[in-house]
Amino acid sequence: MSSIRTLAGEANKKIGQEVLLKGWIQRLRTHGKIAFFDLRDRSGVIQVVVTDEKILGQLSDLSIQSAVEFKGRVQKRGEKYINESLPTGKIEVEALSDFKILSKAHALPFDMGGEVLNLELPTLLDNRSLALRHQQIFPLFKVQEGIVRAFREILQERQFTEIFVPTLVPSATEGGAEVFKVDYYDYKAYLAQSPQLYKQIMVSVFERVFTVAHAYRAEPSITTRHLSEYVSLDVEFGFINSWEEIMDLAEVVAKGILEYIDKNYKQELNMLNVSVPVIKNKIPRIKLSEAHEIVFKRTNSDNRGEPDLDPQEEQELCKWADEEHGAPFVFVTHYPVSKRPFYTMPDPKDPELTLSFDLLGIKEEWFTGGQRINDYEMLVNNIKKVGGKEENFGIYLQAFKYGMPAEGGFAIGLERLTKDILGLSNVREAALFPRDMERIDERLKEIQQKEK
Amino acid sequence: MSSIRTLAGEANKKIGQEVLLKGWIQRLRTHGKIAFFDLRDRSGVIQVVVTDEKILGQLSDLSIQSAVEFKGRVQKRGEKYINESLPTGKIEVEALSDFKILSKAHALPFDMGGEVLNLELPTLLDNRSLALRHQQIFPLFKVQEGIVRAFREILQERQFTEIFVPTLVPSATEGGAEVFKVDYYDYKAYLAQSPQLYKQIMVSVFERVFTVAHAYRAEPSITTRHLSEYVSLDVEFGFINSWEEIMDLAEVVAKGILEYIDKNYKQELNMLNVSVPVIKNKIPRIKLSEAHEIVFKRTNSDNRGEPDLDPQEEQELCKWADEEHGAPFVFVTHYPVSKRPFYTMPDPKDPELTLSFDLLGIKEEWFTGGQRINDYEMLVNNIKKVGGKEENFGIYLQAFKYGMPAEGGFAIGLERLTKDILGLSNVREAALFPRDMERIDERLKEIQQKEK
Repeated sequence: MSSIRTLAGEANKKIGQEVLLKGWIQRLRTHGKIAFFDLRDRSGVIQVVVTDEKILGQLSDLSIQSAVEFKGRVQKRGEKYINESLPTGKIEVEALSDFKILSKAHALPFDMGGEVLNLELPTLLDNRSLALRHQQIFPLFKVQEGIVRAFREILQERQFTEIFVPTLVPSATEGGAEVFKVDYYDYKAYLAQSPQLYKQIMVSVFERVFTVAHAYRAEPSITTRHLSEYVSLDVEFGFINSWEEIMDLAEVVAKGILEYIDKNYKQELNMLNVSVPVIKNKIPRIKLSEAHEIVFKRTNSDNRGEPDLDPQEEQELCKWADEEHGAPFVFVTHYPVSKRPFYTMPDPKDPELTLSFDLLGIKEEWFTGGQRINDYEMLVNNIKKVGGKEENFGIYLQAFKYGMPAEGGFAIGLERLTKDILGLSNVREAALFPRDMERIDERLKEIQQKEK
Repeated sequence: MSSIRTLAGEANKKIGQEVLLKGWIQRLRTHGKIAFFDLRDRSGVIQVVVTDEKILGQLSDLSIQSAVEFKGRVQKRGEKYINESLPTGKIEVEALSDFKILSKAHALPFDMGGEVLNLELPTLLDNRSLALRHQQIFPLFKVQEGIVRAFREILQERQFTEIFVPTLVPSATEGGAEVFKVDYYDYKAYLAQSPQLYKQIMVSVFERVFTVAHAYRAEPSITTRHLSEYVSLDVEFGFINSWEEIMDLAEVVAKGILEYIDKNYKQELNMLNVSVPVIKNKIPRIKLSEAHEIVFKRTNSDNRGEPDLDPQEEQELCKWADEEHGAPFVFVTHYPVSKRPFYTMPDPKDPELTLSFDLLGIKEEWFTGGQRINDYEMLVNNIKKVGGKEENFGIYLQAFKYGMPAEGGFAIGLERLTKDILGLSNVREAALFPRDMERIDERLKEIQQKEK
């Protein structure tokens, strides 16, 4: 018998053979002289049958989630036990010998053996390290990895350079009060609200750049779609002929991510019982004013003249796009200057509006982007207009002072994308360890009390 | 003539053709009725010849680094003008028409046209956005991207899952005073010194994980090898049979990164005039006590009995490895318990020592890693031993309470690796926007004065 480990996912090719398996006991059913358990390893899950008395004894007081290894034989399941939805659903392993408990789990605080974890989110987050092992949860983060892989591959194919930019910044440069302050030696520093200014600088170096960055927002409220720390997928590129090229690329990225997940993550999508929308047609592009009109016509709710979309409108516009254009995706463009950051390029045809867009997906904003001001003097003036100080933007303004072509880009919140693609209801479910105003792993109030 | 842009790097295939080029003027020499400039775009650099009077006029008051576009014809250079070291060294483009200044650069604060930027590091950092465009600087960050690509590819091939873990943490869990404090709503939070605890948790979910994380150290001194924010390449995996497997993987990663850069970044290595060391033999593995002996024998400097290596010893050991084993790389193992974090597995043969290692490369520590304590009770005891509180490690300890196999991993500082591979003298040169106790983009003292 081989002393080389076989993964659950490799067992289909080893029917009749003796194998060494290692993993965690995911579910366990004992029936006197026979027991069944699901073994989870990095490749997936496989069913194990136990009739050996010694092993039955070892299992008798073993908690679920214990890590084990053993030797067994791969065999076909009987016809009526076949589980078509599982990649290993036509086989099982009979445990034979050398059953070792590598790490014995304590009694679990809740049932991890079911198909679904019927627990409230706060309980799941209080027990995050355990809950993440559940078959309804860990596949979320395989898909999340896939989103980032797709993002990188699409951009690398197009000669974008990945950059690594800092998150400690000298001032709250993008404006707004929602910024975290850091004690930085004898000084103050802040956590970046986005990698925006750095990715723009890097256009003058590499022309086309992307980054997978951490971004921080001191959101003063608890919502289902905001985190205080999140992963931002950021893109920026120069020498554009038209700002429409930025939407063209955003469209390629959105389509590409969905196709990549659909193609490469079938096992995870099956486990989660979701299917990914695929964008076949060109995504429609409508102005904010048209968007308000569409919503007004469909719902009689009148936001015409408002400078932004509210969440109900975003949802309604995705519905409209799904019905009229075959997928719940729509670009909304030309937001007013007042609603966009100082670096946003005004529309030369109407300087009250900007060459900016949001890409709405499924039911809400997915990407936000646009053309940036690349003229140094215009940028300096705009900083002053919003009450900023030129001298607080030294490194940033340098990039524009010494030659910057027309450029633009967009940003994507990874957790929100994960949430919407997988049909989750709260963005916290789409972060391994979500942070909000009440929680950093544990509830902050409780941490505070412990420290007293 | 095509209105589709041609990149510098594509021009070799278009000899005799008329092309549209866009980019930055990197160097400019005018000689009355003829001028030459180097055009830089994302693909590289190409020489441009100008004899057209109108274009000569446009060039006459143009600063270097201005962004331009124009139409021209690709032609072979005369034999004696061939530059073998440049990928476009056998051709040039004659500028013909439609010369447009896309963004005019202000006069530069220093000469950017030379082969080398002969400036002190503080000046280069004060003018970072400009200096990054220099041909001796931007290729560093292409190679840096390559290091991360190699790291990811090597691990993805081995079924490691990339994870995204937070940097805002509830307490200074890894000990030490060198931690940044954050005002987090009504609470205090901290910036993670490493993704260590989270990557360990994730072993119980995905078995094999890696992350490209930001890490923060409030280093109270200015050295040439520390940054206060850096990129940490982190690896962790479970179900190991022996802690030697961790070094085996570290060796694969170190060799793989160097080979990848050597193979895929020839243009950048040429521009930087460096060659990458390649590891052909097995990297030697010696205990800390042996390491002190070797240094003592070679230099008569006696650190035997010391619990750690000093920088001179690290350098000497790399020299020794180069002479005796063919490459300046050596694993030093079995550091004492007192010098390693609480989660480090003690050596069962001598519990004063640990199953830990540093991989020294070129001249200093590159990777640090080892086996971790995976037994829950032992881990709790160790937390108490170092003066920590069990209740501050709630989420972390959960992972061990509910079944954790033998596991370990390692971490790599990206900027230090970049510095050593490319022969830089200061780690600040290997970060796009380096942070230290005196600088966040600008000098902090100056920022503070502006705010007064």
